[in-house]
This record gives sequence, structure tokens and C-alpha cells, in this order.
Amino acid sequence: MTTTGKQLFTTLESDGTLTVAIEDVSFPEPTDNQVLVKMEAAPINPSDLAILTSAADLENAEYSNGKFVAKMPEPFNTGSKARHGQKLPAGNEGAGTVVAAGDSDMAKALVGQRVACVPGSAYSQYCIADATMCLPLGDHSVEDGASAFVNPMTALGFVENAKMDGQNAIVHTAAASNLGQMLIKICQEDGLELVNIVRKADHVDLLKGLGAKHVVNSSDDDFMKQLREAIDATDAFYGFDPIGGGQATDNVFKAMEQVAVSKMTEYSRYGSNQQKRMFIYGRLDMGPTILTPSYGFGWTLSGWLLTPFLANAGMETVTRMRQRVLDNLTTTFASSYKTKVNLEEMLTKEAVLDYRAMKTGEKYLVTPHS
Amino acid sequence: MTTTGKQLFTTLESDGTLTVAIEDVSFPEPTDNQVLVKMEAAPINPSDLAILTSAADLENAEYSNGKFVAKMPEPFNTGSKARHGQKLPAGNEGAGTVVAAGDSDMAKALVGQRVACVPGSAYSQYCIADATMCLPLGDHSVEDGASAFVNPMTALGFVENAKMDGQNAIVHTAAASNLGQMLIKICQEDGLELVNIVRKADHVDLLKGLGAKHVVNSSDDDFMKQLREAIDATDAFYGFDPIGGGQATDNVFKAMEQVAVSKMTEYSRYGSNQQKRMFIYGRLDMGPTILTPSYGFGWTLSGWLLTPFLANAGMETVTRMRQRVLDNLTTTFASSYKTKVNLEEMLTKEAVLDYRAMKTGEKYLVTPHS
Repeated sequence: MTTTGKQLFTTLESDGTLTVAIEDVSFPEPTDNQVLVKMEAAPINPSDLAILTSAADLENAEYSNGKFVAKMPEPFNTGSKARHGQKLPAGNEGAGTVVAAGDSDMAKALVGQRVACVPGSAYSQYCIADATMCLPLGDHSVEDGASAFVNPMTALGFVENAKMDGQNAIVHTAAASNLGQMLIKICQEDGLELVNIVRKADHVDLLKGLGAKHVVNSSDDDFMKQLREAIDATDAFYGFDPIGGGQATDNVFKAMEQVAVSKMTEYSRYGSNQQKRMFIYGRLDMGPTILTPSYGFGWTLSGWLLTPFLANAGMETVTRMRQRVLDNLTTTFASSYKTKVNLEEMLTKEAVLDYRAMKTGEKYLVTPHS
Repeated sequence: MTTTGKQLFTTLESDGTLTVAIEDVSFPEPTDNQVLVKMEAAPINPSDLAILTSAADLENAEYSNGKFVAKMPEPFNTGSKARHGQKLPAGNEGAGTVVAAGDSDMAKALVGQRVACVPGSAYSQYCIADATMCLPLGDHSVEDGASAFVNPMTALGFVENAKMDGQNAIVHTAAASNLGQMLIKICQEDGLELVNIVRKADHVDLLKGLGAKHVVNSSDDDFMKQLREAIDATDAFYGFDPIGGGQATDNVFKAMEQVAVSKMTEYSRYGSNQQKRMFIYGRLDMGPTILTPSYGFGWTLSGWLLTPFLANAGMETVTRMRQRVLDNLTTTFASSYKTKVNLEEMLTKEAVLDYRAMKTGEKYLVTPHS
């Protein structure tokens, strides 16, 4: 029996025309270790926007029922050359009910269960997913489970990565995000120090309300002084930055170095011996990353992605992380949503402009069968 | 018996006044494992300029006999806050004759020998140096030995670092430098592939004359194409950049990613899985480093400094590297100089403006007793 339903696709042509549209499709039968999931809830995360909207001119796009067509400006169009002409699915993660399975025992055992999964095609009424990556939700609702993967595993991944690297403290820029709030709770549970950087006074109050000890506001005139004091108090020379563009990471490196230099007894032209480590894990700012020559040579900056981290961490660690997410799905790892939209509603001008702004605490949930 | 002589000092005041001047000083007696070296030849390397001139306005400085006074512009003055008011020696390395020693057997055994050393105060008629770090030059002249440390050990360090990281190929920006030419020979000897980036057609010819296989010219219109082809031919996803500012590293990351993506069978919004690694080991360009969001998240950029690298590499590796330098001091590791100056001559306007320009193949040698 062939399953049919609606699915979202995003296509960028070489002339910069971005078409995002709902189509009626037939889904393949699951084979081997695959399952077919009736997808009931899928969040729109910043990482989804990379192919859903990217830097397209959404103000001047053409919107029609279940479709928009927009222009991708340079240098983003040329930078996306590798996807030109390809019709891509979208939606990293979501939750739904397993309605069919391949031959493997693991896949067959999931039939009828609610699961969270990471199909890469979650903006769809049905998805093929790998049974190994499915997280059975037990009594939890699909809404509770829809964001069980990307944010929880990323926040846990930071803490795991920090521990692997022998660190006891982390700096987090854009710390008021859903993920940032999870990180505060994880660090509290695991006894790690955390320096939270936010850009609004409201967010300082929000995070202090969650018990965060060190919250600094990048909009304050004395931001750099606040940041140095927090780094000095925590010895945090290791951090994660979802902003990417501009000087978010540069400011952190500067403050780290100034703290390290203040503890040196003798001047060195090469700066301190304190190793400073930052990871860029998102691109909330799509401008270039600016690194000023003001913290010597003892620093390392990397891109950070969840999938290769998990592959390196190994199955035992990943299984332990998944179980921790499941055990705390409605507490530490709870996500909240501003609104729910179905597949057609998510492609209206009002919705697209709103979720592309990526405002803190205003996440959208897509419910493909509503 | 007290030894007296001339020594260069550099002082930056908090108001941005940089004073570089020769003074008559008394040198302490060497103790323990120290030796006193009569310094006969010391090169001016880019790394020395960090405290000798930095970004000071040398065109409008006041020059007098054995002295210049210049203004340090912002943001460099504030960025150098840690040295404000401190009178610093200068000159990383040099060669001379050991004239006195502390009590240790190692130090005493060096008396009367010509040695290369790394005192950090080589622009001086005498220096205190650590015997452990002295390289006895045997029959080699002080001129042959003056640059035996910084460039040779850095170039060897790149190759050692690449091998430790399992790499068989290196990209080098600003490859026509003295160090770049050493790196070409080392890579030939050790069977590593090397992609050389230069900015002049003359330099392409120069390096090809040394047997370099892959030389690309950043001034050519098709530079990025040349770079991609060289990376494709060598699988070099690992490199070293002495330019630091601007987009030298960014261009290399872009080309690496484009080569990696061209080999992928399926599009990924996150870019390739190819890890790309670059190190900034100098600041020929003191502007900010610009990293564009055009090569996914699979990249790491670090500052690289020789001293911490050697400390991590361990004594056995360092001893092997030093022996290799000594064995090939007039071939692989030969340095050439544009001109020789004494301590007073090195502080004339003509000399300062000339060596601060850091032109390829125009290194100065300071001979404090001439």
C-alpha cells in the first residue's frame, strides 16, 4: 500500500530564485532498519532556516497558497552553488507515530509507538527515518518530543565536549535561547560554571530567575568589564557562540586574554600562555566573523556541528545522552513554542518573516496534519 | 669583573609614545645554567617587530643618534596596555661567543664556543642565555648561525605538527619568505606535498627554481582556480598563514571546501565532512582576520607559536630538530641578508622604514660589535 501526503521542498536555481513549496508525494516503503513516521510535530530551528530561507529577500517574495518564490542575494547565491537546481526536503527533527517498518527487529518493534526522530525531511506528513536514531517517547506527547534532538543533544554535547577537554567552565553567547536555558540547567546539574552573555536586560532577569549565577549584558556600556569579571570568577576559557558573524567570539577572546594577562607577573610580547578555545555552532549573524589581533596566538576557533560530534563521541556516550534527554524531557529539556502552523501556514508571508527573525522565545512548531 | 656594553630597549608609554633607544648597561654575571654571550650577529625577524616597531608612525618619528621616538596609533596602543611603562629588551635570537658561564657543567662546557641562542635580548653587545637552549655552531660562522632558531625551528615545527596530526600535505601562504623556502626543502626531504601561495610572478619563478611543484599566485585573476587545483592535486586540508589579517586564511578555507564539496555525491546544507585546519603564525597584516560563512562548520583555526609547540613536542623531538638544523645550516636552513647594521644604524629612519616593510628576501642582520 502506497502512502501519499504533503511534503515541503526547497529549490534554489543558479539564477538565485528560491522556491519553497508544498507538493503531494508518494512515500517509499521502509526497508531494513527504516521506519515510516506519520509526522505530527516539527520545530523550526535556526539550523533549518539555512536551506528554508537563508538570506533570501522575503519582504519582496511572491507568496501564494503553499508556496513562496524569493530572490537570494549575493554572495549567498554563489556560496550555495552546490545546491543549485536540487529540490531538497527540509526539517531536521520532529515527532510522530511509526506506521510502518522495514524488516529489522529494531524497526518492527517501533510500529505503533510515538517517536522523536531526525529525518531531515520533517516538514512533511510522512517521513522515512532510521530506527537507530528514533527515540521512543513513551507517554510523552509528540509536542513534548518534537524538539528532543537538536537543542537537547547540542546543549548536552557542549557539556560533554567541555568535560572531554578537561574544562570546568563554559562561556555561552546568545544565552537566552531555548538551548541556552537548557545549558544553564545542565551546567547546574553537572557542577560546571557558566558565563551567560545576553543582549537585553529582560534576558538577564530571565536567566537569573533560572538560577544562572553569571549573566552579562552585551548592550550595557560596561559589557567588557562584566565579561572579564565573570571569566575571572569562573576561569572560563572555553565557549560556544551561535552568532558566528561579527565580533561575538572576538569579544570573548579579548576578555579571556585580558583576564589571563592580568594574572601574569611578567610581560610577554606573545600574550599569555592561557589557551583560549571557542566554537561557532550557528550563524544567527550571517556576516563575516571578525578576529582582531588582540589576544596573541594562544587561541583556537572551530566550527561545531552536532552530527560529527556524536560520531566522535561514540555510541555509549550518545546512548547515555539520549536517555538523559528522555528522562528530563518536560523539565531540563522542555521546549516552548510561540505558535503552531500547518505546512501551508508556515509558507505565508506573516509566518516566514516572523520565524526568520529568530527572536528569543518565539519558536514555531509545524503540525503537518492539522 | 663586570661586563658593560650597549643594549637596545623599547618602551611604550600609556600615552602611546614609543621610545626605542640604545643604552650603556652592565650585564649580570651568569649563574647556574646561564652563559654570557658576546652577541655578534642577530637577525631582525617579523616576530621581533612586534615590540620593536609594531604599528608605530615611523614616517613622522623623531630620529636622533641611537634613538627614535614615535607615536603608536589606536587600537594598537590600548591593545598593548600590558607593556605600558615597561622598558623591554628586544631581539629573539642571534649568535656569538660564550665569554662566561654559571656553575653547571653544561654551561661551563660552552665557554669559548660560538653558539646560536634565543635570549630575547639579542639586540645587545652581550646577553645572558640559557645553556640548554644554546646550539654550539662548531666551525660555522656567527652569520651562518644567527638565524638558526626562529625560522628553521618554525618551518620544521610545521612539518612535525602536520605529521603528528596525520597530514601528508600543507598549504603555506606568503610562501616566498626565507621560512617558506626552508619549508619547500623540508617537505621535499620528508616527502610531504606543499601548496605555496605567493603574490608575485617573480616569486612563482623563484620557488619553482627551488623545485616547488605547486605554486599559486594570489595576484592572478584565476588565483582561486589555481588554489583549488593545487589542493585537489595534493589533498592539502591543513596549512599555515603568516599574514593573519584580511582573507588569506579565508581564501584557503574556501578553496579547501570547494574541492571537498566537488567530491561529494549528495548535497549537505552543512557543507562537507572534510575537516579543514589552518594556523596563523604571524601578523604581516595587522588588520582583523576575516572569516566568511562559506565553508560550513568543519574547520578549525588556531594561533601558532613556536615556544608552546616545542614545549608540547617534548625534549626528544626538539633535540632531533635542533640536530637537523645544525647538520643543514648552510643548505636547507641557510638565511640570507640584505644588509648589516650595528645598533645605532638599526635605529636610523632609513633602516627602520626599510626593515619594517618586511619585503621578501630583504632581511637585516644586526652586528652589535661592528
